[in-house]
Amino acid sequence: MFNVKILGCGSALPTSHHLPSAQVVEVRGKLLLLDCGEGVQLQLRHQHLNLMRIGHVFITHAHGDHCFGLPGLISTFSLLGRKTPLHVFAPATLQPFFDCIIDSFCVGMQYEVTFTPVDPERCEVVCETSSFRVSSLPLRHRVPCCGYLIEEQPSLPHIRPEMIAEYDIPHWAINNIKAGADWTAANGEVISHERLTRPAEPPCRYAYCTDTMPNPDLPAWIEGVDLLYHEATYAEADASKATLVGHSTATQAAEIARAAYVRRLLIGHFSARYDDETPLLHEAQAIFPATELADEGLEVTLRV
Amino acid sequence: MFNVKILGCGSALPTSHHLPSAQVVEVRGKLLLLDCGEGVQLQLRHQHLNLMRIGHVFITHAHGDHCFGLPGLISTFSLLGRKTPLHVFAPATLQPFFDCIIDSFCVGMQYEVTFTPVDPERCEVVCETSSFRVSSLPLRHRVPCCGYLIEEQPSLPHIRPEMIAEYDIPHWAINNIKAGADWTAANGEVISHERLTRPAEPPCRYAYCTDTMPNPDLPAWIEGVDLLYHEATYAEADASKATLVGHSTATQAAEIARAAYVRRLLIGHFSARYDDETPLLHEAQAIFPATELADEGLEVTLRV
Repeated sequence: MFNVKILGCGSALPTSHHLPSAQVVEVRGKLLLLDCGEGVQLQLRHQHLNLMRIGHVFITHAHGDHCFGLPGLISTFSLLGRKTPLHVFAPATLQPFFDCIIDSFCVGMQYEVTFTPVDPERCEVVCETSSFRVSSLPLRHRVPCCGYLIEEQPSLPHIRPEMIAEYDIPHWAINNIKAGADWTAANGEVISHERLTRPAEPPCRYAYCTDTMPNPDLPAWIEGVDLLYHEATYAEADASKATLVGHSTATQAAEIARAAYVRRLLIGHFSARYDDETPLLHEAQAIFPATELADEGLEVTLRV
Repeated sequence: MFNVKILGCGSALPTSHHLPSAQVVEVRGKLLLLDCGEGVQLQLRHQHLNLMRIGHVFITHAHGDHCFGLPGLISTFSLLGRKTPLHVFAPATLQPFFDCIIDSFCVGMQYEVTFTPVDPERCEVVCETSSFRVSSLPLRHRVPCCGYLIEEQPSLPHIRPEMIAEYDIPHWAINNIKAGADWTAANGEVISHERLTRPAEPPCRYAYCTDTMPNPDLPAWIEGVDLLYHEATYAEADASKATLVGHSTATQAAEIARAAYVRRLLIGHFSARYDDETPLLHEAQAIFPATELADEGLEVTLRV
């Protein structure tokens, strides 16, 4: 299971049709929260997601529309009696706000919240578990900012059922073979584990890139990802405004997607100036056809 | 015009049917925000209220469900190009959070935001303009907490139209008479301003009291108010829980209303444990019949 759910895809100015940035990525039963705009805990409820399954929060930068939901989320976890730690990752510029939340509102809290500063200048692994690996992706915005590459950990290969029958392999040996052990048959013949298995599906990879001007270094870091979320705050007609405030146009997002050979592109972080983002979609699709518009509640399943 | 609009009347744990605490009071065209729970800026939009008309924010205490909407509101005002100052009043325990918002997210902001600490131990005027006067009301909660009494400033008396005709009073003299000047008629007769006018309606008074255990001192401070909002987090059956966490039951709220001879009572700050607050309403009405349940979007007009 690798699933991306959009909780908010508006930009800084709230509108009646979009909420500030937040997404949930589900990887093998774990929930990762990407950005944490105001109202995220309510959105999680509306989308019928179990808040308590969130173990990790990755915040791109210290602008309010990406982090003002954090104090409410941390407090609500405490009210719900959470015991397991919550791990927050963000550029160090967010730390004063984080510390203030902890000092002002979390005295006597029964669970641990950690803050790990992410270097927004480096592309490196910032968090790794047995289920997923998250790396930072340097972006170009008005303040220190990084995207995140979320990768499923590789799966063990599948055993070939016909080989089990042919070599009479007992159940207890299967996990060893998947992990790389060869099998010695009753007649002494050694059968290599490669013959007994077929490779697992390649790990799902998702790149979350907001807020940023087009970063020419980005395609090399995210090449071939299954899905790229790239901000497209503006239409190309507003390109000079986009550059001025450190954002991208739909055209620029599509150019990044094309240069990175990604499979699918999701554009979001829409400016409040657009009542309808269809022109942005068409603009991007002209360059990268496999583009979709983000929307609150949209779910993209990369693996069932 | 004196109008109270409920934006949120749930308690700390968010639910699908209630938002955290926030209300807007409109007095003579000015908007006052009472408490500022997460998502308040979105609620203001949903309720078609013009954010920019808010000049004053009064926060009862430094619990998240009463103040986590403040960073988003301050930031959005800046994005909207606000130039007029915003005045925030709250117990001093909120100041570190306020300072952190200003330091972390408001660098270069084009409008002024002031913070005035309110002494939650004293009943005193904390803010006065030509339109309204706001006083603090000491409450009894787990942390320093105060309610607010919002009073319209007295209006000038009305001129009696029949007197204008009888004494041939010119238009230019009317405001002087309203303000207390007597009138000397053509024949030299001095007519006292009391004869020429009838008193204005008494000023509207609204008391906002949350979060608190029943405070026996409260009725004396709010006697005869047109409307009392008093928290009723729990039903009387959960009275011991209420006391434990520094809250009131619906029965206790009604007892305060009765003791204070208020005109109407609005109960709110409902615990997430109740799917339906009708039993709380009936409980309160048994003691104080003029009780209503708060609800998101409810508007109570005290003067048209």
